[in-house]
This record gives sequence, C-alpha cells and structure tokens, in this order.
Amino acid sequence: MVYKYIHIVGTSPDSIAKAMEDAVDEAAKTVKSIRWAELGRVTLRIENQKIEEYQAEVKIGFEVERGQK
Amino acid sequence: MVYKYIHIVGTSPDSIAKAMEDAVDEAAKTVKSIRWAELGRVTLRIENQKIEEYQAEVKIGFEVERGQK
Amino acid sequence: MVYKYIHIVGTSPDSIAKAMEDAVDEAAKTVKSIRWAELGRVTLRIENQKIEEYQAEVKIGFEVERGQK
Amino acid sequence: MVYKYIHIVGTSPDSIAKAMEDAVDEAAKTVKSIRWAELGRVTLRIENQKIEEYQAEVKIGFEVERGQK
Amino acid sequence: MVYKYIHIVGTSPDSIAKAMEDAVDEAAKTVKSIRWAELGRVTLRIENQKIEEYQAEVKIGFEVERGQK
Amino acid sequence: MVYKYIHIVGTSPDSIAKAMEDAVDEAAKTVKSIRWAELGRVTLRIENQKIEEYQAEVKIGFEVERGQK
Amino acid sequence: MVYKYIHIVGTSPDSIAKAMEDAVDEAAKTVKSIRWAELGRVTLRIENQKIEEYQAEVKIGFEVERGQK
Amino acid sequence: MVYKYIHIVGTSPDSIAKAMEDAVDEAAKTVKSIRWAELGRVTLRIENQKIEEYQAEVKIGFEVERGQK
Amino acid sequence: MVYKYIHIVGTSPDSIAKAMEDAVDEAAKTVKSIRWAELGRVTLRIENQKIEEYQAEVKIGFEVERGQK
Amino acid sequence: MVYKYIHIVGTSPDSIAKAMEDAVDEAAKTVKSIRWAELGRVTLRIENQKIEEYQAEVKIGFEVERGQK
Amino acid sequence: MVYKYIHIVGTSPDSIAKAMEDAVDEAAKTVKSIRWAELGRVTLRIENQKIEEYQAEVKIGFEVERGQK
Amino acid sequence: MVYKYIHIVGTSPDSIAKAMEDAVDEAAKTVKSIRWAELGRVTLRIENQKIEEYQAEVKIGFEVERGQK
Repeated sequence: MVYKYIHIVGTSPDSIAKAMEDAVDEAAKTVKSIRWAELGRVTLRIENQKIEEYQAEVKIGFEVERGQK
Repeated sequence: MVYKYIHIVGTSPDSIAKAMEDAVDEAAKTVKSIRWAELGRVTLRIENQKIEEYQAEVKIGFEVERGQK
Repeated sequence: MVYKYIHIVGTSPDSIAKAMEDAVDEAAKTVKSIRWAELGRVTLRIENQKIEEYQAEVKIGFEVERGQK
Repeated sequence: MVYKYIHIVGTSPDSIAKAMEDAVDEAAKTVKSIRWAELGRVTLRIENQKIEEYQAEVKIGFEVERGQK
Repeated sequence: MVYKYIHIVGTSPDSIAKAMEDAVDEAAKTVKSIRWAELGRVTLRIENQKIEEYQAEVKIGFEVERGQK
Repeated sequence: MVYKYIHIVGTSPDSIAKAMEDAVDEAAKTVKSIRWAELGRVTLRIENQKIEEYQAEVKIGFEVERGQK
Repeated sequence: MVYKYIHIVGTSPDSIAKAMEDAVDEAAKTVKSIRWAELGRVTLRIENQKIEEYQAEVKIGFEVERGQK
Repeated sequence: MVYKYIHIVGTSPDSIAKAMEDAVDEAAKTVKSIRWAELGRVTLRIENQKIEEYQAEVKIGFEVERGQK
Repeated sequence: MVYKYIHIVGTSPDSIAKAMEDAVDEAAKTVKSIRWAELGRVTLRIENQKIEEYQAEVKIGFEVERGQK
Repeated sequence: MVYKYIHIVGTSPDSIAKAMEDAVDEAAKTVKSIRWAELGRVTLRIENQKIEEYQAEVKIGFEVERGQK
Repeated sequence: MVYKYIHIVGTSPDSIAKAMEDAVDEAAKTVKSIRWAELGRVTLRIENQKIEEYQAEVKIGFEVERGQK
Repeated sequence: MVYKYIHIVGTSPDSIAKAMEDAVDEAAKTVKSIRWAELGRVTLRIENQKIEEYQAEVKIGFEVERGQK
C-alpha cells in the first residue's frame, strides 16, 4: 500500500468544518480512495470588519491505485 | 497545587467541537477536577470520499488531589 | 501598504468559530481596515467536568492608515 | 530497559526551579525509578498585577519495573 | 470511539525498529486495543565511543474500552 | 471576556525569574487586569566573558475592559 | 534548474528503510530525475498488539524537465 | 532596561530587504529607540502569474522609555 | 473558492528573490490563477568555497478552476 | 563582523541560572569575545527521586577575531 | 560536568542505523568521552531512481575534559 | 563520506544575500570542502531608526577529509 498527499485550502462563509468538507469534496474530484486528512493552518478573510470566509488548509492522504498518478 | 496531563483523542461524526467534548467527557470518567484543555492535531477519517469522523487530540489538565493517581 | 498584527484571545461558550468572531469584533473596536486573521492556540476552560468556554488565540492583520497607531 | 513519560505541571510562588521540584516530588508519589525530566512550557498566574505562581510543565521519564503500570 | 495516548521510550542494542517494537510490547502489557503509534525523538546511549543502545520515543494510541483506565 | 497579548522582554542582572518580574511590572504600567503570562525565548548579554543580563521574552495576557485599547 | 516535491507515504511490514524505499519506488513510476528525499513523520499500524506496518512520510525532490508536469 | 515587540508586515514590489526596510520605517513612526528586528514569514502576492509584492513579517524590538506606551 | 498548493524549489545564481521568481515562473507553466506564495527553507549549493546557487523552497497557492487538476 | 556559535550543556546541582553560567564559563576557556547566548532545552538528572543536576543547553555566540578558529 | 555538542551527518548505502554509526565513529576520531547522541533530519541521495545513500544528521554530546577543546 | 556542520552568523550592511556570503567566506578560512549551507534566523541591528546591519545565521555543511578536525 502506498499513499500520496495533496494540499488543499477549502473555504466556507460559515465554519471551519464546512471549509474542511469543501477541501475534501474538491480532492474527491481528482483522486480516488481518500483515506484520511489533517487540518493545517486556519485563516480568515475579513471584509468590512467581519469574517467573510473561513479558510482551512487540509493535507489529504489517498491510496495510490495501479495506473493512477 | 499540582496538575497532570492526559492525552485523549475524542471523535465525532459532526464537528471538531463535539470531538473535543467527547474527549473531555471521557477524561471525566477517570480523573476529577479537570481545569483546562488544549486542542492538538485535528484529523479526519474519510470513507467513500466523505468525512466520516472528526478526530481531535486534546491535552487535558487536571488538578491532582491527595491520594489520586 | 503596511500591515500590523495584534494578538487577541476571543472566547465563547459555544464554539471555536464564535470565539474567533469575538476576537475579530474586539479588534474592530480599536483598529480599522482589518484584512485577515489566523487561528493560533485553541484552549478550553473546564468547570464541573464540562466545557465552559472556548478560547481562540487569533492573530489579526490590519492595514495601517496615515496617522493611525 | 523501557521508560515511560508522565506530564506534570508543578507550581511554586517562588521560582521556576521550585515549580520543577514540585512536579518531581508529585511524580515520586506514584512512580518509582525516575531517571530524568525535561522542562516544557513555563507560565505565570498573575493577580493584582503581580506574579502569584510559577507553573512549569515537566515531562518526567521513569524506568518501568516488572508489574508496575 | 475514544482513544488515549501513552508515551513510552523503547530501547534496543540493535536498531530503531527493535526499540519501537520494544515500546509497543511494553504498552501491550498494560493497555488493550492498541491501534497506531508514532515515532518521536530518537536518541543513542554511547559508551566507549560506540552505540550501546537505540532509544525511541513512541506515542502509542489505543482505543478506550468500557471500564478501562 | 476578551483578552489581548503584549510581548515584552524583561531584563535583570540576577536571574530569569527577576527578568520575568521586570516584564510583568512594565506591562502593569500600561494595561490593567493582567491574568497570565508565558515565558518565551531566554537570552543572555555577555560582557568580559561574564553574564551581564538575563533577558526573558514574556507574552502577557490581560483582560480587555470597556473603553481600553 | 527547478525542482518539485511530491509527498508520499511508503509502507512496509519490515522496516522504516523498506517503507522509504517503497515511497521512492512509487515516485519513480510517475516522475523522472528524482534527486533527493527527506524523511518526515514515521507511524506504525498495529494489530493484535503487534506492529503490522511501518509507514514513512517521504518528501521527494525531483528535477523538472521540459514538458513534464 | 525593558523592551517591547511590535509585529509589522512590510511590503515592497522589489525585494525582501526593501519589505523589511518598509516595516522598520513604519515602526519608526510610532515608537522610538528601535534596537533590533527579526524576520518572520515571507509571503508573495502574485497577479497575472507574476510576483506583485514581497511581504515580510518583522518582529521589531524597541526600548521602552519612561512615559511611552 | 478552492485553492491547491504545489511545492517548488526555484534556483538562481544571484539571489533568493530570483530563486523565488524562478519557482513562480515554473509553476505558471502548469497551473493557472496563482494567488500567493510562501517562502520555505532557503539553501545554498557551494562549490570551490563560493556560493554557486541560491535554492528557495516555495509553497505556491493557486485557485482551482473547473476542469483543472 | 562575523560570529560563530558553539553549543554547550552547562550543569549545576542548584539552578538553571548556575547551569547557564557554567556553560558560559566553559566557553570562555576556548573562545574570546563572547557576545550573547540563548537558552535551549533544560533537562534534569534525577536520582533517588530527587533532582541531582540541572542541565542547560546554551547556544553561545562569539565574535570571530583574525587568526582564531 | 560540562558537555559540548558537535553536529555530524553520517552516511551509509545501507540503513539509517549505519549512517548514525558512521557519524559516531567520525566523532570518536576527534573528541573523547562521547555520552549520547540524538537523531536529526534524515535525507536520501537518489540516483537512477534508487536510494544511493542514507544521510543522518546526528547531534553528538560529549563530556569536556580539562585541556580539550 | 561524512559531513560536519558549523554555525556562523554573517553580517552585511547591504542585504541578506551579502550576509550569507560573508558567513560562507568566513567558514572557508577554517574548513575545506564546503558543500552546502542553509539559512537560519535573519535578524537586523537597528540604529537611529534605520537598518545598520543584516545578520544571517547560516548552517554550513562541509565534507570531512582525513586528518581534518
């Protein structure tokens, strides 16, 4: 078994959890067999003195299958 | 006053907050006088390309009472 | 363009997200033109074996305007 | 030879050294054969604008003997 | 599901791998349902200018069962 | 409750503890309601091959009161 | 000269070295001109209280050639 | 002698050095007696696939004088 | 909005800034909509006791567009 | 001006401060023009369940003079 | 007792353990009374898509004797 | 092949690059066969509110030759 990591920043106007979900959904478009993920840096975009967007860096580990890059 | 730490990983299908609560509840079964906690690494278990479980490492500090190990 | 940081700990009885929002709201009282923020250490205050308060260290970056300290 | 660690926060109104000694004394109540320790985070409790208590996180390594948990 | 960590230093005269195995074997004496482990600091005891012992700090994660401390 | 941090380097010819006390005393001149502090980097100024000054970086957390910047 | 990194987790039932070799072999299937690698986090999968698998995170640096992504 | 830190992000279209200089110049507007500084995180703003701005986080240490906040 | 990271080491015989520029230029060949970058480890290749090459690890964040991997 | 570092572990039965002093005194035997030092890891040797020795890793910076190695 | 550190990178075509041994053997040529060592960064040199060399950074602690530099 | 590290702080009134070059030049006076270097902490000496000196900590790796200490 071999695994690879990709590093994605998911975003959400609502919460960190939604931002992480966003990152996993994006990863699911291009790699199969995602197994686990780990939260990295959490940042906020702020406009008009209010939080506009939660940004969650997520390191996503997926199983490498034959013939997949 | 002396404090000790235990290191627990709480889990929840719903959110990081619930996973932390889970860790504190578990700690409360075996130690008294919990005072504070600190969030460590946050990971996700993923199945069928969806988040199945939020996992929160929590370092829990509790006051040591006489006669308690 | 020049930016400064202030370091605030927001708190909330409900969630990390609310604690971060709390920190941004506090910052907004004394500085203008907040642009982004980054989550630091997350801690919990625990009483009677339950989470009483989520505490979120937030590093807040704001644009420095002429004449503002 | 096998060693285990416990994580203790010793406290003292006087100094970091006393707080470390406090942690080692506490550890000595429940584990035998302590061999070494390492200082971690040092914090202060402050009241009325004065230092009330030095708090020293100490990671304590002890030799595991037969039958000891 | 809830997990706890214990921190053990395994040792071996032969290799890091054997020192890790030593730590896992020791953990298995006192906790059930070990699930994973992570290698921490690796140190060497040296005598007569030769490596006498490999020392591997290992953080061991185990599932908490009902009634187990 | 909201807290802010300031970062001060206290100094003392005598000890780390005195240098930390120095930092807290300085903070007490400009902010009220200091609650806790955390020791950061410890450095030494050396002259004529002797320690002249202990320097302690201290992160000081204080409660924000209405109307205080 | 420009280099890129990919992040792979190699695994082996036998040793950390074999797990690293596994990661390099996997990388060699999709990128050419690998130049160096660096060991990251080392974890273990444990079943029936025994080490089942060594897992080695490896950051692999390779030279970018014309036309290669 | 007591020192304080402020955290500034200087920017420049040209180089890291200019961005650091920018941060020091900004600090000089509001605090006197700057003594040293330390480079933190370096980031880039990129537009149209080109570097638009170098951003240098700088921790600036200055001597506290009587009556200065 | 979703972002991904790639990790590139740019090189230059002249300066860190040129090495960073080199990394961004390389990234621009394979991904669109680069938004920001962050400097990581800086190393030097030295030959005949002189610096031959500046090497800058750069983490490059780009916006993911529909249909782009 | 050019500076070099040496890494010394000073020890003392009494305190961290004495252990640091011990390190500086040792350094002063072999290098001239010491300028500053920085405290690293602090460990304790423990015997008969009591602190026997404070051990302070100290990074010592000294000015390099002509002809000195 | 006073200790010093030297930082050596041992190498081996075979394993991390052999690379560490290599570093200790090299240290033993120039310093006496080596007491312990700690593994740092582990890197690999790769040629023709195969691991050519294991490289282990090792921090080696030795007791300083009278008259030894 | 065995390598050693020395830790040097180069300085320059002009730039980080010049400060690194300064460190490498100094190292070249006392060791042969320097192979690579890595940038560590970057600090500034400031006087009259202006940058007087760039200071670059550089870890320099050199090949150990027979008979060289």
